[in-house]
Amino acid sequence: MSPFTDHPRAAVAALGEERLIAAIRRWLGPVSPRAPFGIGDDCAVLPAARRRQLLTVDPVIYGRHFDATVPPRAVGAKLLKRNLSDIAAMGGHPVSAVLAITLDARVSRRWLELFYRGLAAEARRHHVTIVGGDVAEAAGTVSACLTLLGVASGPRFLTRRGARPGDWILVTGELGGSRGSGHHFRFTPRLAEGAWLARRSAVRAMMDVSDGLAKDLGALTPAGATPRLEATALPVRRGSDIRGALTDGEDYELLLAVAGQTDLRALQRAWRRRFPRTRLTCIGRFEAGRAAGGAAALPLAGYHGYEHFR
Amino acid sequence: MSPFTDHPRAAVAALGEERLIAAIRRWLGPVSPRAPFGIGDDCAVLPAARRRQLLTVDPVIYGRHFDATVPPRAVGAKLLKRNLSDIAAMGGHPVSAVLAITLDARVSRRWLELFYRGLAAEARRHHVTIVGGDVAEAAGTVSACLTLLGVASGPRFLTRRGARPGDWILVTGELGGSRGSGHHFRFTPRLAEGAWLARRSAVRAMMDVSDGLAKDLGALTPAGATPRLEATALPVRRGSDIRGALTDGEDYELLLAVAGQTDLRALQRAWRRRFPRTRLTCIGRFEAGRAAGGAAALPLAGYHGYEHFR
Repeated sequence: MSPFTDHPRAAVAALGEERLIAAIRRWLGPVSPRAPFGIGDDCAVLPAARRRQLLTVDPVIYGRHFDATVPPRAVGAKLLKRNLSDIAAMGGHPVSAVLAITLDARVSRRWLELFYRGLAAEARRHHVTIVGGDVAEAAGTVSACLTLLGVASGPRFLTRRGARPGDWILVTGELGGSRGSGHHFRFTPRLAEGAWLARRSAVRAMMDVSDGLAKDLGALTPAGATPRLEATALPVRRGSDIRGALTDGEDYELLLAVAGQTDLRALQRAWRRRFPRTRLTCIGRFEAGRAAGGAAALPLAGYHGYEHFR
Repeated sequence: MSPFTDHPRAAVAALGEERLIAAIRRWLGPVSPRAPFGIGDDCAVLPAARRRQLLTVDPVIYGRHFDATVPPRAVGAKLLKRNLSDIAAMGGHPVSAVLAITLDARVSRRWLELFYRGLAAEARRHHVTIVGGDVAEAAGTVSACLTLLGVASGPRFLTRRGARPGDWILVTGELGGSRGSGHHFRFTPRLAEGAWLARRSAVRAMMDVSDGLAKDLGALTPAGATPRLEATALPVRRGSDIRGALTDGEDYELLLAVAGQTDLRALQRAWRRRFPRTRLTCIGRFEAGRAAGGAAALPLAGYHGYEHFR
């Protein structure tokens, strides 16, 4: 469904700003609290926070993250899910979001309604409130920028730093072929999994895989170590291959480092009891030293994940 | 200065994403803390908050909020100041911000550096940390979306609701001619003033004037009342006129309702001691009843502030 309409009456411009904002609040429904705790004042008022908080921002942009082939509900849901995946990657709980949207005057009201309804459904699912926003007009643009505030789900949160040489490398779910399979819109952010993993002291570092394993793994790799992956161990999505699992990106799975002395079988048994439908796969190890080679190692050189401005 | 360059080597695309993000952190300097408290992890980690918090979002978009005639430092500063003005309007203190930027590949590195340096200078001035962000590429676009988190500066914050019939209407500074005079880039957000006003129980409601007094005043007007303004009392900026003061917008001044029984002279004496260079002007009163007319009343009908999608 194209975001644009040729019928002036069906376009957002026919509403004017005030009626558009009223419509947005209607489309969001119960996930949009009343001002001053939601949309309608200069700022949204949020409660005090006892635990440390997490803040992240991600956009969706027409022509870059979606096009006319993508259902607008899926675009709205994905905008929130991209951010939820970042909160999951640190073992956090999402709380509240604000959304700035920039629209061409010819964007159709119907498209926009479905976009917001898709966002609202996803927000309801994760008990996230949409507490504020901004609407601006710009020719040729359909873009939305969502900022998500969360809290640590327990006494500990995980960052990308903390892995050590000798640690195991694990990944949730499957990798590769995200765009072809529709996974990049259908994925479920690993919030429960991230919170569970953050409570295990054996897990030392975590991040989400969004630009492809080959690129993202570098951020988890400790100084003076090299990631050695077992090619045969990679949980490749059906229809994809090792190259896809390494480089496709948009997997939105959790990538983690687990202390080398950990009983991995016990960890995986506990995982299967809690998450019987989701794989947790050991795909390799951080080895001390640089650029170790060998028959069992998967060379990462030559594989690059997605990079903007290339 | 145009954001775009015809020289491929001078464009952001020549950097690639990773070097661009490293450059952004360098340009931001000390206002950009290290991960996990700043840029570089899936989320930024923020401390727990003892008081209620404030959250707001506002963008700047090329062709809408700025063009090639505006110095890039001023664009970066304005992006933060628009959001600071929203925090000021509730009597809050700013704390941390995240910034999502969308760039055409031909945007010049020099333009972008000055944009970030202008933002950083303004952030330093107000002790705001830039803790996270996102960089995306989209053809023909230069836009930035900043989300600002703050806290109430005292036990009380002010909202747009709370005015009653009989309350005085006051405004800080001067109104009108913001774009022609450059005020819309040079203004100082009224943070100290907002915090001071929030501590006075006589002040019942507050907001910032961004779309023009005639439009914004409606949001402060209590049910069953009509704002009656004294035309001669309006603090009109030199070079502007009453129409400009009512409708130009981008004033970024504070508009407030003060309880009708208040000793306004005493309030203004205390104000002048604290803020000797800034006017605080009583411009009228909320009268009970609808559409009251009269010789001294300034008719608001026919005056409209700035509205998107019109």
